[in-house]
Parts: sequence; structure tokens; C-alpha cells
Amino acid sequence: MNFVEKIKAGDVYSVARLITLVERREPEAIKTVKGFYSQCGRAHLVGITGPPGVGKSCLVASLIQRFRLKGMSVGVLAVDPTSPFTGGALLGDRARMTELSEDKEVFIRSFASRGHTGGLSAAVNDAADILDISGKDVVLIETVGVGQGEIDIARLAHTVLLVLMPGYGDTLQAMKAGIMEIADIMVVNKADKPGGDETVAELLTVQNFQCVHQNSDTWVAPIIKTSTVTQEGLDDLTEAILKHFQFIKQQNIFAEKNRKRRVEQFLNIFTQRMRDEFMEELKTDQALQGWVDKIGAFELHPYSAAEQVISLVKEAREGRKKVRRQNN
Amino acid sequence: MNFVEKIKAGDVYSVARLITLVERREPEAIKTVKGFYSQCGRAHLVGITGPPGVGKSCLVASLIQRFRLKGMSVGVLAVDPTSPFTGGALLGDRARMTELSEDKEVFIRSFASRGHTGGLSAAVNDAADILDISGKDVVLIETVGVGQGEIDIARLAHTVLLVLMPGYGDTLQAMKAGIMEIADIMVVNKADKPGGDETVAELLTVQNFQCVHQNSDTWVAPIIKTSTVTQEGLDDLTEAILKHFQFIKQQNIFAEKNRKRRVEQFLNIFTQRMRDEFMEELKTDQALQGWVDKIGAFELHPYSAAEQVISLVKEAREGRKKVRRQNN
Repeated sequence: MNFVEKIKAGDVYSVARLITLVERREPEAIKTVKGFYSQCGRAHLVGITGPPGVGKSCLVASLIQRFRLKGMSVGVLAVDPTSPFTGGALLGDRARMTELSEDKEVFIRSFASRGHTGGLSAAVNDAADILDISGKDVVLIETVGVGQGEIDIARLAHTVLLVLMPGYGDTLQAMKAGIMEIADIMVVNKADKPGGDETVAELLTVQNFQCVHQNSDTWVAPIIKTSTVTQEGLDDLTEAILKHFQFIKQQNIFAEKNRKRRVEQFLNIFTQRMRDEFMEELKTDQALQGWVDKIGAFELHPYSAAEQVISLVKEAREGRKKVRRQNN
Repeated sequence: MNFVEKIKAGDVYSVARLITLVERREPEAIKTVKGFYSQCGRAHLVGITGPPGVGKSCLVASLIQRFRLKGMSVGVLAVDPTSPFTGGALLGDRARMTELSEDKEVFIRSFASRGHTGGLSAAVNDAADILDISGKDVVLIETVGVGQGEIDIARLAHTVLLVLMPGYGDTLQAMKAGIMEIADIMVVNKADKPGGDETVAELLTVQNFQCVHQNSDTWVAPIIKTSTVTQEGLDDLTEAILKHFQFIKQQNIFAEKNRKRRVEQFLNIFTQRMRDEFMEELKTDQALQGWVDKIGAFELHPYSAAEQVISLVKEAREGRKKVRRQNN
């Protein structure tokens, strides 16, 4: 078997190696991922987001077990904080989770953000495709939720879980930030602690407020109390995740979600490449250097500069369309 | 006086209003900022970053007082967390700081991130220009430092302060994240608590390790112990900030820093506009919709799609150059 065949067969070492290579943005690895593309789209991507400390990692460990009992294979992509200052606390959880991975049908990988979130997002997208191709039924994408960047990563999943805990008092914060709108399932974890029902009631209030105009075809995010200590609600959560996947497939939301994710991925790659090309050209192109000097010397505002380039791009596009029309 | 003249005269209400309008990205407000541009570049932008809880807000309050005693006017842009989950704790500090602003030579403004960091960065950039034009000598840009986004904002300043505290134990974290390389001044705040000297020693070790190849013309970031309780080090810090400004002006680093900031600003505006244009065109352009459908249907990989567009842009640029050469 060659490398690609090994990945398709789910060989753990080959999968791990390719993910490492895409994380480093190696051109050969990205070419491999591109080659896979027509065979992607089978796995169920589940995003798990929420504030630090609500027990997301333990919940992920419980979900892995539940899915395994159903005979499903599981991939986990754990996205560590974008923060250069925090993050140590997570490592303990991660070590705990890795115990599970003696099971060959479970693949767990952590991503720490080095530098910008854009690069992280690209690597996680590619890793999700690799796990998809390697035959994983479910890919859990856990983000620590401290930054908008992680939330953007979570929302690329087919099913998004928002995890809170009793008495967290952040329901309103989450609502304001538009998190609740993207949540397909709301989880009140650590339900063995007091205050769980109040948090559920709060979430219901917000949800009723938001769902006024929804019809019966629309998914109303279930609110599920869970505890990894008492095992409460974990089966319900597993079923809700699977039910949501069925729902989006029946309602043709699946294709729409894939399209949205891929357009976002395209725009991220494209804008990053435009930046790189610009900085590369700036090194040698004297006309461009002169133009940038004007920006730096307070002669040409960055807004005006952007407008100039945008209209050049537009002009080129119009010209192209004209040529196309003449050729037809 | 018209609106623009009032802003140039430092009228607090007009300045506040224009900042509100740029925060909402109102086209008229952005036009006003563009009109100012040739008169920008006087103010000293000071970025203040570091982990939550090290006392950045109190430090900012102390710095305001020190600069005021020197007869300098001060603007403060406080950038709140990108996190949709945290952030409440900061509001107390902010209320404390606002007390100072009965002084007309002090202008304080908080920015909460709504949605993506890109929009925040654009608004903070514009607000810094508005404060510059309004005659502020120093503009302190305080970020809470929980995400890469905030650090990117801080590094756009002329002088970057990295604030830590004794026993934080995050020196290594900060170093790994490349924060120490961007710091022009390192502050060990809360020096009234035990462990300050150890933290200074740690920072020195890292610094010596990094500075091996530096020559005498290079700025070596001073490490300053401060306490807003005992007032230790606050005068030294103020002097160090002013000294760094002198240094970058003498070494012609000032123009280079402005240029770098503006190129970054241009690239952010440009790529955001490209995204917006794309999404706008996608609504009506059927050829584009068909192309995107192929991406969403796993027929064309987002990487390949990006490459296609990049080569079209390149082609257009080459064509333009050719036309330019023929015309000369």
C-alpha cells in the first residue's frame, strides 16, 4: 500500500503524519489533501464550543465512548487557545483523553495555535478532511472557545454544541455574541452541581425569544443536562447529535452547510494567498514599493489604496467577461 | 467651526461621535478619516499587552497621570476581549479609569469586539488616527491580550509594552508565542508582591538568549518593576516610553513602523473588501454560483479554486504592465 492507500485504510501512523505535514503547510501534503477531495463529505463533523472550565474535554471523552459502543469510529480535533498567555490547564485533560486512543478506531489530535488563527483554521479544515477520508464516522472538533477564531472553526461543523454549566451566568454573554444562534444543541454540563435547572430555564427563555418565527420544519436546539460524573444525559446527547445529522440530511441542509464551509475555506485561502503574493512582490517591484511608500508617508490612505486595487481587479474581471462574450 | 474643525480642535463630543461612527463602519465617517490622513502621524502610539489580571488598566491610569504632569495630552483605546464568553471583569477597571476623564486633555474609549477581530482592528486603527488628529500627544492602546488578534493590534503601536507580574510563570509561554520579540519595554507589574526579582531574572535570561546578535545601535528592551500601590517604577516606565520614542525617531525606525502599520492596515481593508465583493457578486452572478457549487459538491478543492483566482489576478496584472509599457 502506498501512503494515500494507507490513509484511506485508516492507518493511524500515516494519518498522523499527513496531519502533521498539513499543520506545517507542506505543499506536498496539501496536494495530497486536494487529491482526496472528491471522496470527502462522508463524516459527520461535530463542533463543540463553550467557555473554559465547563468540562468540554470530559464530555468529548464520554461522547467517544458512546459512539464507539454504537460501532462508530471517531476522530477528535482539539483546538487549543489562540491565547499565547493561557492554555497550560488544558494539557491535563488532553493527557486524560489520549488514554482512549489505544483503540484504533479513535484518533485524537491537538492543535495549538501558533501565530494567526487563519493558519490554524486551514490546518483544522484539512485535518477534518483527512479524518473523513480515513473512514472516521464522526469528527469531533473541540475548541476552547476563548476567541472568535475558535468559534469560527466550530461553526464550520455540521452540528454545533454549545456547552455551558450551572450558574455560569454567561447565557446572556453567549446570546449577545451570537453563539446561541449557531448552536444546534445546547448542553448544560456538570448537571450534578446545583443550579442546572435555572440555567436550562434561562436558555429556554432566550430560545423562546429567538424562535418566534420558526416553523415546524425548523430544528429547535434541544437543551440537554449532562454530567460525566453521574452519566446523566450522555445517552440523550449522543442521540441528539445523531438525530441532528439525520435532520440536516433530510432537509437538504447538509449540502448547504458543506457549501458554506467550503466557500469560507476558499475565501480564507484566497485572501491569505493574496497577502503572501503582495508581500512577495513588494520585495522586488519598485513601482509597488513607491506606492507603499506613499501609503506609509501619509499621502495615500490605506482605504484609498484598497479601493484602487479593488477597482483594478474589477476592471480586469469586466475585461475578461467581455472577451468571453466576444468569443461566444 | 464645522465637524472636522471641531475634531482638530480636540472637541471631546465630536471626537467621541466620529469614533462611534467609524466603529459602526459608516462610509461618511471613513471618508472623514481618509480626509485627515495627510495630517496624521504626530501622536506616539503605545501598545500595552499582557495576560489578564496583571493590572494593565491600573498601569494605564498611572501612566495617564504621569503624562498629564508633563503637560502631555493622552488618548486611551481599551480593546476588550475578543472572547464572547469572558470580559465582565474588565468593566470595573474601565469605570475606575473613566473618573480621570473629567480632564479634557484625556480621552478614553473602550472597544468591545463584536464579531471578527478584523473589524475591531480597523476601528481601532481609525480611532487612533482620530485621536492623533485631535491633538493627543500619546495614544495608549490597551489590549487584554487573550487572543492573537489583540496582540496584532498592540504591535501596530510605535512602542509596545509587555506587562507581566511576579510568579505568573508565563514568561516561557510569552516567549514561545513571540511576544517578547515585539516588546520594546517589559514591565513586571505588582512588584509589591513577592517574586518580582525572580520574574525579572527570568526575563533577563530569555532576553540575553535572544539578543546575542544585536549591536549597540539596537534597542534592548528595559525590564522595569512597577507597582501602582507603592508607585515604584512608574516614573522610570514613563521615561522609558518617552526614551523609546526618541530612539525610534533618531534611528529612522519611526517611518518604517508607520509604513509597516499602514501596509498591514491596507491588506486588512483590501482582503475584507475582496470578501465582501465576492459574497455580493455571488448573490447574482450565475457563473460564479455554478463555480461555487462545484466547490461545495467536492468537485473543485478550495485550494484549487484559490489558485484559479490568483492566476487570473496575476494575468490581469501582467496585462496591465504590458499596456503600461506600450504606452510609455
